[in-house]
Amino acid sequence: MADEMKNLGFARLDMSREERTGLPETIYCPGKTIEQLIGILRVFSEKGTAVLGTRCTSEQADAAKAAGLSVTYDALSRTLRLDGPAPAELPGSVAVCTGGTADIPVAEEAARTAEYFGAPVERFYDVGVAGLHRLIRCVDDIRRAHVVIAVAGMEGALGSVVAGLVKTPVIAVPTSVGYGASFNGLSPLLSMLNSCAEGLSVVNIDNGFGAAVQACRILNLIRNHHE
Amino acid sequence: MADEMKNLGFARLDMSREERTGLPETIYCPGKTIEQLIGILRVFSEKGTAVLGTRCTSEQADAAKAAGLSVTYDALSRTLRLDGPAPAELPGSVAVCTGGTADIPVAEEAARTAEYFGAPVERFYDVGVAGLHRLIRCVDDIRRAHVVIAVAGMEGALGSVVAGLVKTPVIAVPTSVGYGASFNGLSPLLSMLNSCAEGLSVVNIDNGFGAAVQACRILNLIRNHHE
Amino acid sequence: MADEMKNLGFARLDMSREERTGLPETIYCPGKTIEQLIGILRVFSEKGTAVLGTRCTSEQADAAKAAGLSVTYDALSRTLRLDGPAPAELPGSVAVCTGGTADIPVAEEAARTAEYFGAPVERFYDVGVAGLHRLIRCVDDIRRAHVVIAVAGMEGALGSVVAGLVKTPVIAVPTSVGYGASFNGLSPLLSMLNSCAEGLSVVNIDNGFGAAVQACRILNLIRNHHE
Amino acid sequence: MADEMKNLGFARLDMSREERTGLPETIYCPGKTIEQLIGILRVFSEKGTAVLGTRCTSEQADAAKAAGLSVTYDALSRTLRLDGPAPAELPGSVAVCTGGTADIPVAEEAARTAEYFGAPVERFYDVGVAGLHRLIRCVDDIRRAHVVIAVAGMEGALGSVVAGLVKTPVIAVPTSVGYGASFNGLSPLLSMLNSCAEGLSVVNIDNGFGAAVQACRILNLIRNHHE
Amino acid sequence: MADEMKNLGFARLDMSREERTGLPETIYCPGKTIEQLIGILRVFSEKGTAVLGTRCTSEQADAAKAAGLSVTYDALSRTLRLDGPAPAELPGSVAVCTGGTADIPVAEEAARTAEYFGAPVERFYDVGVAGLHRLIRCVDDIRRAHVVIAVAGMEGALGSVVAGLVKTPVIAVPTSVGYGASFNGLSPLLSMLNSCAEGLSVVNIDNGFGAAVQACRILNLIRNHHE
Amino acid sequence: MADEMKNLGFARLDMSREERTGLPETIYCPGKTIEQLIGILRVFSEKGTAVLGTRCTSEQADAAKAAGLSVTYDALSRTLRLDGPAPAELPGSVAVCTGGTADIPVAEEAARTAEYFGAPVERFYDVGVAGLHRLIRCVDDIRRAHVVIAVAGMEGALGSVVAGLVKTPVIAVPTSVGYGASFNGLSPLLSMLNSCAEGLSVVNIDNGFGAAVQACRILNLIRNHHE
Amino acid sequence: MADEMKNLGFARLDMSREERTGLPETIYCPGKTIEQLIGILRVFSEKGTAVLGTRCTSEQADAAKAAGLSVTYDALSRTLRLDGPAPAELPGSVAVCTGGTADIPVAEEAARTAEYFGAPVERFYDVGVAGLHRLIRCVDDIRRAHVVIAVAGMEGALGSVVAGLVKTPVIAVPTSVGYGASFNGLSPLLSMLNSCAEGLSVVNIDNGFGAAVQACRILNLIRNHHE
Amino acid sequence: MADEMKNLGFARLDMSREERTGLPETIYCPGKTIEQLIGILRVFSEKGTAVLGTRCTSEQADAAKAAGLSVTYDALSRTLRLDGPAPAELPGSVAVCTGGTADIPVAEEAARTAEYFGAPVERFYDVGVAGLHRLIRCVDDIRRAHVVIAVAGMEGALGSVVAGLVKTPVIAVPTSVGYGASFNGLSPLLSMLNSCAEGLSVVNIDNGFGAAVQACRILNLIRNHHE
Repeated sequence: MADEMKNLGFARLDMSREERTGLPETIYCPGKTIEQLIGILRVFSEKGTAVLGTRCTSEQADAAKAAGLSVTYDALSRTLRLDGPAPAELPGSVAVCTGGTADIPVAEEAARTAEYFGAPVERFYDVGVAGLHRLIRCVDDIRRAHVVIAVAGMEGALGSVVAGLVKTPVIAVPTSVGYGASFNGLSPLLSMLNSCAEGLSVVNIDNGFGAAVQACRILNLIRNHHE
Repeated sequence: MADEMKNLGFARLDMSREERTGLPETIYCPGKTIEQLIGILRVFSEKGTAVLGTRCTSEQADAAKAAGLSVTYDALSRTLRLDGPAPAELPGSVAVCTGGTADIPVAEEAARTAEYFGAPVERFYDVGVAGLHRLIRCVDDIRRAHVVIAVAGMEGALGSVVAGLVKTPVIAVPTSVGYGASFNGLSPLLSMLNSCAEGLSVVNIDNGFGAAVQACRILNLIRNHHE
Repeated sequence: MADEMKNLGFARLDMSREERTGLPETIYCPGKTIEQLIGILRVFSEKGTAVLGTRCTSEQADAAKAAGLSVTYDALSRTLRLDGPAPAELPGSVAVCTGGTADIPVAEEAARTAEYFGAPVERFYDVGVAGLHRLIRCVDDIRRAHVVIAVAGMEGALGSVVAGLVKTPVIAVPTSVGYGASFNGLSPLLSMLNSCAEGLSVVNIDNGFGAAVQACRILNLIRNHHE
Repeated sequence: MADEMKNLGFARLDMSREERTGLPETIYCPGKTIEQLIGILRVFSEKGTAVLGTRCTSEQADAAKAAGLSVTYDALSRTLRLDGPAPAELPGSVAVCTGGTADIPVAEEAARTAEYFGAPVERFYDVGVAGLHRLIRCVDDIRRAHVVIAVAGMEGALGSVVAGLVKTPVIAVPTSVGYGASFNGLSPLLSMLNSCAEGLSVVNIDNGFGAAVQACRILNLIRNHHE
Repeated sequence: MADEMKNLGFARLDMSREERTGLPETIYCPGKTIEQLIGILRVFSEKGTAVLGTRCTSEQADAAKAAGLSVTYDALSRTLRLDGPAPAELPGSVAVCTGGTADIPVAEEAARTAEYFGAPVERFYDVGVAGLHRLIRCVDDIRRAHVVIAVAGMEGALGSVVAGLVKTPVIAVPTSVGYGASFNGLSPLLSMLNSCAEGLSVVNIDNGFGAAVQACRILNLIRNHHE
Repeated sequence: MADEMKNLGFARLDMSREERTGLPETIYCPGKTIEQLIGILRVFSEKGTAVLGTRCTSEQADAAKAAGLSVTYDALSRTLRLDGPAPAELPGSVAVCTGGTADIPVAEEAARTAEYFGAPVERFYDVGVAGLHRLIRCVDDIRRAHVVIAVAGMEGALGSVVAGLVKTPVIAVPTSVGYGASFNGLSPLLSMLNSCAEGLSVVNIDNGFGAAVQACRILNLIRNHHE
Repeated sequence: MADEMKNLGFARLDMSREERTGLPETIYCPGKTIEQLIGILRVFSEKGTAVLGTRCTSEQADAAKAAGLSVTYDALSRTLRLDGPAPAELPGSVAVCTGGTADIPVAEEAARTAEYFGAPVERFYDVGVAGLHRLIRCVDDIRRAHVVIAVAGMEGALGSVVAGLVKTPVIAVPTSVGYGASFNGLSPLLSMLNSCAEGLSVVNIDNGFGAAVQACRILNLIRNHHE
Repeated sequence: MADEMKNLGFARLDMSREERTGLPETIYCPGKTIEQLIGILRVFSEKGTAVLGTRCTSEQADAAKAAGLSVTYDALSRTLRLDGPAPAELPGSVAVCTGGTADIPVAEEAARTAEYFGAPVERFYDVGVAGLHRLIRCVDDIRRAHVVIAVAGMEGALGSVVAGLVKTPVIAVPTSVGYGASFNGLSPLLSMLNSCAEGLSVVNIDNGFGAAVQACRILNLIRNHHE
């Protein structure tokens, strides 16, 4: 098992993750001080590899830029990308769907993470089940993708409906979009877990990143299986 | 306000409910001893009015029959009906839909309650969203109804999808069908409350009866409005 | 099925909703950027139809005004109305009741939405059950309405008490008014779902909008039934 | 502080509770083996004092009788009384009200406990808020009591409505009567805790016993204050 | 039943509460606009009666003063008192105890409400069960009170321990003091409801006001019983 | 879209699911009467296709056999298989791991469902994280699988640990194994959703079936991608 | 690291746990078939070591005896002990306290597990905080123990009170004793986690076993520190 | 029992805690006004003893410094230390481990509290189970400690994995690190309570302080046992 590690005291960096898991390194930014985050980014910068930071605040991003690091920040998806060599392209493609407009930030976290990992992504936004004709018009396009990421808040029914319409694995992402009895995403989380449709698995509330990793592990599997 | 009441000690019977609310009397059977239930039925039997008991066990029903009361029991819906004059027919009709086969007992409680109140009922069972073509084939028929009762467990997406397809009021009934993270119906309850579709209101888990009362109050309104 | 749609990328607008559902278009404002909201309003402005935005912040409203759109904002109910032709008046009327003064913002969301849809509305505020004589003095007036919307926080008993006093359908709206064990509206939500009174159905916590849609679908049904 | 204690190994009996708290001894029967329960009853029997067991099963009661103890069992309230001298009568009286028939077992636990402690009790059963005229007819009688115990399941609105109608302290007892979103009594518990009415305090779900103790401590206070 | 009412549109003021319930009027301030609050205060000011506002913010209080009303504000307990004739003194006394220092604001809401109603109050602060000797040193003083209000957050054990040491009714107030698994007061709320001690009833989390009303209804009962 | 359907009244059978989704038909047995289940099995028997019933009770299985249907029942996994042509073998393989012995029934539901769909399955039971050496000894074998299903109750840490050790997608199945604060599987469900490891998605508590469908959709994708 | 393992297919037995952790082997019996349990016991029997099974049903115990294994079963604590050499005695002692009689089965699980591990145990049963004098009489004896295990249901205040009275580590075990708002042990669990007393840590609801292991690890530490 | 107490009105200071419990005094800062906190610090300053304040805000710390008190503040761990004589060193050592970087503030609260009590502390940060090789590299060092404090958020698996690798008692601290379905630390709390590993006990979410007290009571026990 490849397990090179760099111990910074506050963090032990996994320097051989790509070799071990097939997907490049990422950083979970919350709870890291600006000094810690910059310290971590420098290690990767010196190593010459790209890295993606998720849930990055604009303050963290600004500080990274001010420290002279070569980074790109996307405020909508809260992702920070340290420049580096592009990953090998993954085979197949990922469809990212949302129930509504308010789910787009989570969907973009998924889409940009997948793109960082080398996956082609197609976006289908605001296709929630309240107006079924919106979804039905896209269904042939969605079916062409190899993995579907269904992002929805409120009652989260998009996951079930999509999983019933396609052959491919569907990864459902509940979002905290909603109010009252959505209890910050509990409602769509339970919906997706209890789906009467098959072929659906679920990640944490607002976890676009996790859905993208799972999608890319699947695409990676296709690549590896036929090499 | 019509408020004739008969006090049996353990129960105070509302003898003028039909006059006051437009809908005939019903009995909630759980927690009543067999003696209490028979006592209540006798009061209505002597008055010469029909009455519907809900959530009635087969033991309660058998005891009522053994006591010489003229009753009919339906085990699937757990309803017990004391014979009496048929109610005036309500205008319009009620569509009762279910997500799956296991939701039928709750749907039948709704359907039989509505029929007891005088409403014509049409049943659309096993039209859940995992196989959308099942629902879409029925949608023109469902649209013809005046009120729709959507009964579903698991993730309860049926309510949202139906409400997006019809013009009429939809009353959603979450059921305790499911397991694990359905938490005995919490999952479809939250889904239905958080529906991104409009035109949906919700009753308690497994409360087919309550949905039927609400539907019949609506039909009654049509009748009253034009008398 | 009328299903004209306009795809803005971040939103797919349902341009034929009024034709399909009998009620005009509305916009759920949360989670939409100012640019997105203005983009959507422009589409309707150009089409020449009115539209109602709910849960609109004052920042969103100010931006819409600054963008030259002809809109009216009501801060209490957080509704934003794009000017346009008035809807056809609905038959019947809606009574909107609140338990207390603090429930009025939610009640006003319901009342203004119903008015936007063309329904006459009568308001009965601060008639909670702790001082029953306040409610009893209004009960004859409330009974004259065709649909009752009962808005209450804390223990939410207003729904049950009202539903026991009227013949018409009651739509109960739990509010997040309260503290401690109200758990942001969970307490009145559960109360309303478990009502021992009949003829009550429930919408999401603080969802005045949803109650109004359901009420207007009912009034619309009266209109359609007799056309 | 009077603190005579008898240690049976599995239980340390408080032999001077009446002296210390003003109210005689009681036994919580669940989780005690038949041998343990009989052992405890014997201690009190030998001491010559009465004692009341609550939540006693019929098996426990039968075993106590078979062991030759002079006990009386009431199956409805699940109370077992070891014969002994009657307590001094408490001043004032307790009104015990229920929302419905199914709440009566809990109400009887309260009523019989209060009677065991020497309090006069008046019962008002099935006066729930869904048919307000039932309650209003009794309200003058209820007002004559010194303490009111309001027992209700489902949405538990009885507590609020009663507390708004009387001057005396109201002790609310939520019951597990109901189904679905009552979550075994959580719904009326939250209702009673969040009451918009004043003068209401709450005990555990189905805890008729605890309500009676609180009521009798209040009556005892009247007695002591004027001795 | 005395039921004089004044309808301000946004509020229906109960002008005869003291006559009906024996305790003077109070105002729940949250969710009222400054205009509404001042409007209500003016009604009572013109009537010449005192009134107590609870959970009043300093902004509300400042505005009331600026409007020329004769009010006194206590920031710790968040109570606002409109000057007026002092109430008749209640017989007996109330002991207000807290587990810790952080519970004092809730305790002061209870103490000042009780004092407003005319009850003598004695305070026992920071007597939590972690250092039992602190409580035991006060126990003889606490026993002299007629009603005990036990205010505690975290695990809320104070209620049980105190109820086991006194003869009088104990009203337990859980507070939101704590963090993590206290879940904003759920932990002490459940503790107090499940107390193994007798003679305890419970009000909402942080509801010092409600505890004081219940305590004063009890003292009022002593007064009335012997008039 | 292939959408042949057979309407039995209580169920609408999806006769072209294999064509549409790539995986053969299955039946969810709970909530179906014996008559309903046999009716459904007969349809498939007459069509000459195999079908797998999940969560089947021994009573249902015995009745199916008694009705002359050619079925095989496995009590441990509660699966019932109607004999029929074997499916085409899927490429790759599925590793099914459990934390403990008590998780095996859920794991077997997953394993037998995957085998019914044509996937080779390897079992790794009782490799929970409390004794890490048990898992580490198997890790090279687990890595050879194309998809990993990690089944665990109690704290459900197996999912995280496995996902950190392999490159392939991991589907985590929380089980209801445990007691107390596992709250019937809530604990492992939350653990798996909050995993700090990447490459993990989650299905419902005890939903071995759902994990297998997701795994086989992934394997099916490999097949389809290269045809 | 000592890591001898025996793989039975359904279970991988840790044959060197005593060497690795200092405490002998135990078996968690739930979810194991009788055949599996006997198979595991035989492995240890053949190895000649004692083993303790917890949460063992009487059916499992009877089957083990019938299979000729030399075992002892204690129904109260649900422990099954396979005979074998006694462990070396641990230094110090463990005090096991309960709030009430109904907590004794959990306490006995703790006590017998600790005894199996070689720790001297002293029992203090029914010393709950409702009658504080019962606890205070024992406190000098409890202080002499090296570790205290505090077992309590209902509100679980025993943990806090004891931890405030002793210098030693206290391990608190919430039990499912109680009803209503104890929510199967949630109430004492939260109490113990939120204790205002220091020196308390908590194990799962009803987990007497886990408390004993932690206590014995502590005693083992004393032994090891001074060898 | 040593029980010297100083009553400040708002707080009753335990002046003999060290004598009674073996560990010096600490202050829980939340909910204390700046005046109260300074008042308490002055008492200890005058007595000449050190004291540690936990969860201290920077405002509180600045005010203490401005008041002329000799204090040291650590912002990361939110601890404030009043200078005073160093405690006697405790025997043995404490290992403090974290799952990730974001758990460090809680870990530092534990570490600094333990150091204040006289315990040697070794830190192992960012050794979470997603990259098991990070933990395995430290395991021999962790085993050398006498007590292990395992601090982790998200799924909190660190506790189980560590407890399975060491002989010593493990005290698990769930943290509120995470989002979505971590529900502010509920997820790791449940994980740690349901651990399949033995030798683990748990404190409140984010309660590094409580873990340190428990650890030091254990070390103190070693000291006392051999004096």
